[in-house]
Amino acid sequence: MTDTRVDGRVLRGERTRRAIIERAMDIASVDGLDGLSIGRLATDLDVSKSGVITHFGSKEELQLATVRAAVEVFTQHVVRPALEAPAGMQRLWRLCELWLDYERGIFPGGCFFANVAAEFDARPGRVRDAIAQSQLDFRALFERLIARAAEVGDLPADVDAAQLTFELKALGTSANGEFLLYDEPAAYDRARAAMLARLRGLATDPSLLPLS
Amino acid sequence: MTDTRVDGRVLRGERTRRAIIERAMDIASVDGLDGLSIGRLATDLDVSKSGVITHFGSKEELQLATVRAAVEVFTQHVVRPALEAPAGMQRLWRLCELWLDYERGIFPGGCFFANVAAEFDARPGRVRDAIAQSQLDFRALFERLIARAAEVGDLPADVDAAQLTFELKALGTSANGEFLLYDEPAAYDRARAAMLARLRGLATDPSLLPLS
Repeated sequence: MTDTRVDGRVLRGERTRRAIIERAMDIASVDGLDGLSIGRLATDLDVSKSGVITHFGSKEELQLATVRAAVEVFTQHVVRPALEAPAGMQRLWRLCELWLDYERGIFPGGCFFANVAAEFDARPGRVRDAIAQSQLDFRALFERLIARAAEVGDLPADVDAAQLTFELKALGTSANGEFLLYDEPAAYDRARAAMLARLRGLATDPSLLPLS
Repeated sequence: MTDTRVDGRVLRGERTRRAIIERAMDIASVDGLDGLSIGRLATDLDVSKSGVITHFGSKEELQLATVRAAVEVFTQHVVRPALEAPAGMQRLWRLCELWLDYERGIFPGGCFFANVAAEFDARPGRVRDAIAQSQLDFRALFERLIARAAEVGDLPADVDAAQLTFELKALGTSANGEFLLYDEPAAYDRARAAMLARLRGLATDPSLLPLS
């Protein structure tokens, strides 16, 4: 009886924590991590301020938890499904496509990371470090998939993985920014077309890639 | 005598206004336009809050004046000197190089516009409109220089100016973000190398461009 009640409380606490984080990710994708306030979250979710503070302590902890949760969302929608494609060019291209889909489809303010990276890039501290790490992990994933594509012979053995990663990431990141700033869905098409042209130009077997 | 005194007051007012704007641009390049507060500017510059309010009225007016001033800085450091290069590929390449120089060298938080565009892109209003317009103007400039390069025969007549502009802008913008987030000056070299490779691949006379 007591155990059940305790479990219920733990579960409700976990649900509240989850609801706060979901709302925090949506807010941060539009207004940035500075847009998160304990008061705003409490009002939006109809919980007490002390309820929010119990879960996260400080604003910085809340910001860090929000970044971690966004990494999980990204892993679930982009990284894991990309890794299900056959190793090599197909996996690399799947990553590009899923990333563009995520930018368009998941958060109200477009890519969570693009927004908070620009917000914190010049502001040293734990939040910047967490954001930078998430971006370094994504970059490392791109580089690994490019190296693997070279290993299986889908890309030339001497491909510069760091340079190609920079270029593909630049295109995808800019699509997000231009779409949001100008309400221009064409930015995603431009990014996709440029990524595809770049990869087709390098591929040993372009037929592994779509024609357009 | 009276006229001199009035002129002196006007001049002092103009100097104060200019000092506020200079400080506001530096702050916004690091902390965003939301990082601007009347109180902070008054403290930083050792003027009264009412002195700041006299010049700008509201925070929104201050943000708009800051965006306008940053456009002037960009025009002075990038646009005008680029237009001094010979029309065609040389002018287009000069624009790329001056842009990368500006990102590195002018504001403490890197590119002013990259920072505030990410901050406001999902927040409709006059500030977002002013930022979007500045970016549209820069994009239009790129497209004009590409079209001109095609006219003088330095690029193929059927070059897709909008697509090429998107790609060059994506590379330059990402260099700024990666440099700030990872303290990696190599990002500028990657952006420059990719821009150069793209333009050399399209150029009718690659000798108008540097080898590396």
